[in-house]
Amino acid sequence: MTDLQRAMADVAARVEKTLDRLLPKPVDTEARLFEAMRYATLGGGKRLRPLLVLASARLFNVADDCALRVAAAVECVHCYSLVHDDLPAMDDDQLRRGRPTTHIQFDEATAILAGDALLTLAFEILSNPATHEDPLVRCALVSGLAKAAGGQGMVGGQMMDMMAGRGSFDIGAVTRLQRLKTGELFAFACQSGAILGRADGARRQALAAYAHDLGLAFQIADDLLDIEGREEEVGKKTGKDAAAGKATFVSILGPERARAQANLLAEQASRHLDIFEDRAETLRQVARFVVDRRV
Amino acid sequence: MTDLQRAMADVAARVEKTLDRLLPKPVDTEARLFEAMRYATLGGGKRLRPLLVLASARLFNVADDCALRVAAAVECVHCYSLVHDDLPAMDDDQLRRGRPTTHIQFDEATAILAGDALLTLAFEILSNPATHEDPLVRCALVSGLAKAAGGQGMVGGQMMDMMAGRGSFDIGAVTRLQRLKTGELFAFACQSGAILGRADGARRQALAAYAHDLGLAFQIADDLLDIEGREEEVGKKTGKDAAAGKATFVSILGPERARAQANLLAEQASRHLDIFEDRAETLRQVARFVVDRRV
Repeated sequence: MTDLQRAMADVAARVEKTLDRLLPKPVDTEARLFEAMRYATLGGGKRLRPLLVLASARLFNVADDCALRVAAAVECVHCYSLVHDDLPAMDDDQLRRGRPTTHIQFDEATAILAGDALLTLAFEILSNPATHEDPLVRCALVSGLAKAAGGQGMVGGQMMDMMAGRGSFDIGAVTRLQRLKTGELFAFACQSGAILGRADGARRQALAAYAHDLGLAFQIADDLLDIEGREEEVGKKTGKDAAAGKATFVSILGPERARAQANLLAEQASRHLDIFEDRAETLRQVARFVVDRRV
Repeated sequence: MTDLQRAMADVAARVEKTLDRLLPKPVDTEARLFEAMRYATLGGGKRLRPLLVLASARLFNVADDCALRVAAAVECVHCYSLVHDDLPAMDDDQLRRGRPTTHIQFDEATAILAGDALLTLAFEILSNPATHEDPLVRCALVSGLAKAAGGQGMVGGQMMDMMAGRGSFDIGAVTRLQRLKTGELFAFACQSGAILGRADGARRQALAAYAHDLGLAFQIADDLLDIEGREEEVGKKTGKDAAAGKATFVSILGPERARAQANLLAEQASRHLDIFEDRAETLRQVARFVVDRRV
């Protein structure tokens, strides 16, 4: 096991426990809703965003307990977006993390509501004093997550994605789409440690720059997995972008140039961390991981 | 025009302007998303929750500009819930406020995303310093709205509602359903003035008690409109609950007892406001209005 694998397994176990504690227990008539929320968030995923939150928080000596709550909130938002994106009216996916998607396992109405409740829970978690004693920090977290996740962030990116099959997107449009769809939430996760640690602008900027390149590298690797990965291994349906005629980094650049670009971005991402000297090793390993991963 | 009608028209005009300013302008590839967000929130509705926010804020001499931002956030949440509830997988409604519902006017994917973005925007608005200078107050607003709107509030109530056609709900279950589905957001709207004004427990409790009775009175009137109202007047499809075999206050109590109960609740709601003496006249008029309204 490499250092990164150990760190990922450790964060995954701890964020799982935190989510289990923060998610409502399935009781009462609406138990089905809470079951669906739990199904969508527990027991799966790489927990890459939680790892980014924890690694960034450690740069500023923030207590893990605070960082884990932020990590859980970010993961609630990430998982809600998967639940809604998988719906028949959106990407119509049946498989996610090797399991039936939430609307298949439950039903569409329950999946829509579970997504809504997960998104709302994220803000409840962040605004709670247990996340940070300073209400200004809590407000900055709420505001940062709302901007990253909303219409001018992740949801806007998903809207562009829904239209990517129709129009003729060039590399600039695809870059903007992916910055919104996945980049902004990555950027919030990476910067959340600096917010929790009330860090200065230069170090926060370095993390933002890292997140920007990391997000694009991650997305190009995702596009490559969609054409090169095997469904059993990736845990979701592959070959979808090409079938839908969607413009992606790979459809525009071709696989070789796309891979070269992803590698370049990963190296560039790491260089933004020079300011942290040898304290940012985990984040550097993550940059390598996102382009090398097979899932 | 009565005093209340004047107050409602005034608040409606001012919250409309505030929403127009806070909602993203339709630009870029994702313009369709912003158009749908605007379609779902602008130009319609009684703006009852915004009126409750404004009236409650005035009890504590809170500046209207702050209260209007909270009112806009509450209305974003209310409108998002209508967009999602109207979806084919949920209540499958084609008509709302006399216009095509959002997924009919646009499409299902856009409606889901517009709802998601409206919910997220509410928290962005509340966490912004323009809403209140004190970050503790902003955190209390975020936390209060998240609890009212989430899985243990409004979304939980909608989940119960989706199951109300299946099970045999008694009056206790219907009361709980409606407290969650509409009551919690009413309660937040009514208490938001006390939060903004950093008011003491007794006055906040009085508003909570008022909101509780008001919410139930409102819902019984809604059930009565569903069986007695004409579609052209109400602006949405009527007779739906009976057709779906849903347990409601009216199906359990019958129309006469239901109307008597609504009147009783409205009077009881007003009495909770005694602590404010003659400063709470608007809120008392609202209690009367919700049971007398024809829309």
